[in-house]
Amino acid sequence: MKDPATTGMSHTSFPVSGSEAREPDAMILIDGTRTSLINVLDRGLQYGDGLFETIAVVDGRPLLWERHLERLLSGCARLGIPAVDTGLLTCEVMQMCREHTQRVLKIIITRGVGGRGYRPNQPVQENMPTRILSLHSWPEYPQENASQGIILGLCTTRLGVNPALAGIKHLNRLEQVLARSEWNDPDIAEGLMLDSEGHVIEGTLSNLFIVSGEQLLTPDLSGSGVDGVMRGLILDMAGALSIPVRVTYLDLDDIKNADEIFLCNTLIRIWPVRRFEGIDYDDFKVTHAIAAELEKYIHA
Amino acid sequence: MKDPATTGMSHTSFPVSGSEAREPDAMILIDGTRTSLINVLDRGLQYGDGLFETIAVVDGRPLLWERHLERLLSGCARLGIPAVDTGLLTCEVMQMCREHTQRVLKIIITRGVGGRGYRPNQPVQENMPTRILSLHSWPEYPQENASQGIILGLCTTRLGVNPALAGIKHLNRLEQVLARSEWNDPDIAEGLMLDSEGHVIEGTLSNLFIVSGEQLLTPDLSGSGVDGVMRGLILDMAGALSIPVRVTYLDLDDIKNADEIFLCNTLIRIWPVRRFEGIDYDDFKVTHAIAAELEKYIHA
Repeated sequence: MKDPATTGMSHTSFPVSGSEAREPDAMILIDGTRTSLINVLDRGLQYGDGLFETIAVVDGRPLLWERHLERLLSGCARLGIPAVDTGLLTCEVMQMCREHTQRVLKIIITRGVGGRGYRPNQPVQENMPTRILSLHSWPEYPQENASQGIILGLCTTRLGVNPALAGIKHLNRLEQVLARSEWNDPDIAEGLMLDSEGHVIEGTLSNLFIVSGEQLLTPDLSGSGVDGVMRGLILDMAGALSIPVRVTYLDLDDIKNADEIFLCNTLIRIWPVRRFEGIDYDDFKVTHAIAAELEKYIHA
Repeated sequence: MKDPATTGMSHTSFPVSGSEAREPDAMILIDGTRTSLINVLDRGLQYGDGLFETIAVVDGRPLLWERHLERLLSGCARLGIPAVDTGLLTCEVMQMCREHTQRVLKIIITRGVGGRGYRPNQPVQENMPTRILSLHSWPEYPQENASQGIILGLCTTRLGVNPALAGIKHLNRLEQVLARSEWNDPDIAEGLMLDSEGHVIEGTLSNLFIVSGEQLLTPDLSGSGVDGVMRGLILDMAGALSIPVRVTYLDLDDIKNADEIFLCNTLIRIWPVRRFEGIDYDDFKVTHAIAAELEKYIHA
């Protein structure tokens, strides 16, 4: 698969300012200008005061764009960040993606530059959000992850419970950084995280589903976790496939006793789990059915 | 009080690179270079993967520098960020402060520039931390806050519980941002935050102490909160003053029933609380004694 991006950016028409990105594969656009430099007083750096989206770009298109945009706007509303100009953002996204066969697009929206102090400008409208788009190389996950399943580890780092932040894909990600630092074994593809109360929540970079009896179950994220776009799509599709689905509290025993376990996000889509905590899982029937349906939906 | 900083930076000798800060009162040094621009791929922005210190600069000196440095190094160790060169950092700090009568110095250390993904470089030593020093104007808090006490509000935003992050002055500060957004009334100087389990932890930008009977009490921060430099100093001084002190779990009733309540940080030092939740407090005896001792220590 040849990616036109590697042949240079000569077809793009964004203005260039300052030094360009050092990473040969990262094209970056900040507030409409091609630059890799940002004001150090931006509240995104000072306080993690912002949110992000990670989007699969395939054949020039940002997959599931409407769902990503909807989550971004919902996150901005919850954090009190003035909504971005969706027309402008969509235009930039489409222009940035159109020549790329397979890439990852990351969008960051911060509350913008502010003075020292936690308090945002008042009124809310006086904050000028910063809009960062960056295009990255596609992560080379082994093909077998999707077909034969992965080994899932168990992280000791827990997720704090905070309903005010739960579900939002915000920039406060130290819990995930610490959790992902826990293992170096390349055979372990992902790590499961519990919240401080012992509920199973998600992987470090994925949401989790289990199949138990005839039901599809996924953790309730009202206390912590990221409400993933792929999770939302799977919940919608399960209904369409007439698979009974329930969002609920799950503990470790629920996972261990599951018939099937799978993880999802917009880049990996669906990875069945073939081993967790010394238990082998070899039934991927429902998981593969959902994955197949997902592919049909995405390529429709 | 005349601040030489307002007459220009001609006496400093740091190299200048890129655009300078737009804020007339912010002098910024990133990895030894005068610039206000940072690589947008820095993990400090991408994940809040770093920590900071806020230091009072008085008469050319960073107050309590050894304590700030010690906490910074301890935070780096806990997050697995390679320790900064303390000699170099101290040298930069001293040079930056020496001509200033009264300023705020903020130091941010991040894990540095990284690719997309939560996982830090392995081994840890391959991460190149970013070192950001910025000098800001002194916040003009009313003089009466320290002498007559303040009104303390109660925030509805809670602090998540996470022992892995508790105590560290890290860059994941959305909880504080949301809490500080809760009130606009200028008569309320600070807001009290509880954790998700209902324990009283701290103010949005300060630590809390109460005097109850003959004892000085302050919340246990092993689950959440920032272990402030001024809090540490007060705990040490209480011992020297022969005031019995206890670090423990406190709930709202403990605060309401206290004989005295006070808040502290390195900029405000000590603010007695004169009203909280409709209750008036007018005894500041122990609070003022500690504040007086603190001034003696700082100016010794």
